[in-house]
Amino acid sequence: MEDVISAYDFSRDQYLEIFSLADEILKGRKIKMKEKIIAEAFFEPSTRTALSFSAAAQRLGMNVIGFSSQEGTSVVKGENLADTIRMMENYSDCIVIRHKFDGAAKFAAEVSSKPVINAGDGKHEHPTQTLVDLYTIFKTFNTIDGLNFGLIGDLRYARTVNSLLRGLTRFKPKSVYLISPPPLKARKEILRELNYEYVELNSPYDVLHDLDVVYVTRIQKERFPDEVEYEKVKESYTIDEKIVNSMRKGSIILHPLPRVNEIDRKIDVSPHAKYFYQASLAVPIRQALFVKILGE
Amino acid sequence: MEDVISAYDFSRDQYLEIFSLADEILKGRKIKMKEKIIAEAFFEPSTRTALSFSAAAQRLGMNVIGFSSQEGTSVVKGENLADTIRMMENYSDCIVIRHKFDGAAKFAAEVSSKPVINAGDGKHEHPTQTLVDLYTIFKTFNTIDGLNFGLIGDLRYARTVNSLLRGLTRFKPKSVYLISPPPLKARKEILRELNYEYVELNSPYDVLHDLDVVYVTRIQKERFPDEVEYEKVKESYTIDEKIVNSMRKGSIILHPLPRVNEIDRKIDVSPHAKYFYQASLAVPIRQALFVKILGE
Amino acid sequence: MEDVISAYDFSRDQYLEIFSLADEILKGRKIKMKEKIIAEAFFEPSTRTALSFSAAAQRLGMNVIGFSSQEGTSVVKGENLADTIRMMENYSDCIVIRHKFDGAAKFAAEVSSKPVINAGDGKHEHPTQTLVDLYTIFKTFNTIDGLNFGLIGDLRYARTVNSLLRGLTRFKPKSVYLISPPPLKARKEILRELNYEYVELNSPYDVLHDLDVVYVTRIQKERFPDEVEYEKVKESYTIDEKIVNSMRKGSIILHPLPRVNEIDRKIDVSPHAKYFYQASLAVPIRQALFVKILGE
Repeated sequence: MEDVISAYDFSRDQYLEIFSLADEILKGRKIKMKEKIIAEAFFEPSTRTALSFSAAAQRLGMNVIGFSSQEGTSVVKGENLADTIRMMENYSDCIVIRHKFDGAAKFAAEVSSKPVINAGDGKHEHPTQTLVDLYTIFKTFNTIDGLNFGLIGDLRYARTVNSLLRGLTRFKPKSVYLISPPPLKARKEILRELNYEYVELNSPYDVLHDLDVVYVTRIQKERFPDEVEYEKVKESYTIDEKIVNSMRKGSIILHPLPRVNEIDRKIDVSPHAKYFYQASLAVPIRQALFVKILGE
Repeated sequence: MEDVISAYDFSRDQYLEIFSLADEILKGRKIKMKEKIIAEAFFEPSTRTALSFSAAAQRLGMNVIGFSSQEGTSVVKGENLADTIRMMENYSDCIVIRHKFDGAAKFAAEVSSKPVINAGDGKHEHPTQTLVDLYTIFKTFNTIDGLNFGLIGDLRYARTVNSLLRGLTRFKPKSVYLISPPPLKARKEILRELNYEYVELNSPYDVLHDLDVVYVTRIQKERFPDEVEYEKVKESYTIDEKIVNSMRKGSIILHPLPRVNEIDRKIDVSPHAKYFYQASLAVPIRQALFVKILGE
Repeated sequence: MEDVISAYDFSRDQYLEIFSLADEILKGRKIKMKEKIIAEAFFEPSTRTALSFSAAAQRLGMNVIGFSSQEGTSVVKGENLADTIRMMENYSDCIVIRHKFDGAAKFAAEVSSKPVINAGDGKHEHPTQTLVDLYTIFKTFNTIDGLNFGLIGDLRYARTVNSLLRGLTRFKPKSVYLISPPPLKARKEILRELNYEYVELNSPYDVLHDLDVVYVTRIQKERFPDEVEYEKVKESYTIDEKIVNSMRKGSIILHPLPRVNEIDRKIDVSPHAKYFYQASLAVPIRQALFVKILGE
């Protein structure tokens, strides 16, 4: 395993290997990778992703350098991305990049001789979030095959959805329901790639009782062309008690977080609510990924 | 010892235990707490406090993650404090929080299953600064009981003063003089809690010769409702040679720092000036606190 | 070796000692300086320099604290530089400072009891970049004496040039050509100090075939009094194929980076292009410097 740019970069077996290594780490297995340095090149702000990569690296005894926004980097002096990446590869053993442009991670991987991990590039992909998502599902149901999925909310601008849809091609979902307001429907070019059945819906109510996994995405203001469109749909897909009450026993609600209003806080205490558990797996799964990429 | 939200969270014995552990650390005792990660959630900027916590953690072999301002956190995406704290607890073993709202640290401690340390919440408290302050006094006089204290300057908006006044309730100060311009008098609700004698004054001159400890606070612009009020009092309480010459032998001047104009730089060389010595104790005392909270 | 403020702070022997220690580190010699903390006080933004110092410290097992811009430091609260430095020395074993004012590093060294390293102060000096530059030359030619140097571009506002010109006084360059547009000529006060021959030119073409080292500097917008003057000269000194084709065999092109338009990207693949190799030496040479200053 070298660069991780897309959820396609893992085979089914590689997903399962990473999950089982994460299990060992959760059970307390100590892996030390001292001397090594992870470079976090975050051209776009993030806390959650950057901090979970930092914590994963440090739990393995590695060090972290990097920046958390474009300001104060040489980019403001007019340096191009290629030169910035060449600098980072000189200083580190692995580059974790977040960038506002689709394809920036792939470009960085072409420039860099060190492994590059995509921590989110524009509206394109966020494959390590998909690792977290699928690992949470796997730990809950002990499988990913044969389950019914409902992806709800912004399926158009959310890179987490693009990566999850692609990651699911490595498994055998029974059915996948894509539930969104029309302006936020999943992109045709992604749907064309899928090797499993999916159904597009405008409302979750008809299928809720069938779903094993309800995957909710934040309706991200910063992804919207204009504020008005954002306000229109913001509230429309809130997961509330009415929705949760019609969910089947044992089914789970996931969310990549951060959330704004998509999930009513009353739901946090529901047995269906697994998004904080999901968040708790962000560090061990990234530890496992680092080990697979950099070796013990 | 679990969360540290207020200077009240330490008993007299706990203060003394932390002081003696800090003494051992200063004498060169090595304590290693590898594997552990400290999360610094600084929603309000700080250098002094954040860097001293980072240095303390690193001296103990621990790692540090976090952010140093609200910008670039998920808060700007609309995430609430509870969710941000739930994220941090997943990534770390202890959360150090600074926030502009009074009570934010207490709220974080209620949400988090990991220990939370208050590094300053609004105008409320700054208990680890009080650890530094009392430790400096203890190392100078070998006691805190029976001393005369003069707190000078902004006693209303300075959280360091609130915490120091509360910390002193664990000891037996002989007398405490609260010296401030009228608009900056200490808050009634704090004074009501005190179990020792105090006197409020508008000028230090009548009592200077009696004071063992002169505790000066920065008149913090950012704490003021309006600029005009700030300018009026800014210069009024400057510690200069005239004041220092009337101080008793062996008495000391402390300041939480940073200072602006409250202490004339000529005073830095005076034997009374202990504020840089005080600053030098910020790291060992926080090392001792981490050990008490997280265990060796 | 204590503070490093100027390229003059190294004797010829000290340059050579640092080079040979860097060689050993590149050959895989492990040096561990655990427990120690490096403080990076970057009052002016930087990625390249700050990250290479961080990587160097971490490769040696040291920890790093600090800040990467003036915002969010106590300076915005009105604290002066001396007090900020006194704080940093309490928290660390060595201070690396970058500041927009000439002489800020020297001032910091006078205040601090801990070693101070100048990571760039205004238009004054950048001595650790000179370590990188001279080390690259030394590794390429196995000497620095007897070579012909051409410094091209902004010789007036670039602190890297000031330090390189001074560093070369410790060696015996055969000839040094200073090639710049008139408004960017090297400063008289520096030229007066030099103990070797130099020639000032407006164009490189007459001497290119004689040069062993072509040292190109970025024409730094932020160093210019006004934008118009910047635009005028920006493109004027671009290293392109025409220039490279007239360079002698074995000669090299160096650049402190970041570059904007001074070197045509087509040149990156030329055997003369050594600026990325130069960048790759930034970490080992700074590791060697830390070892010399702080001891093993």
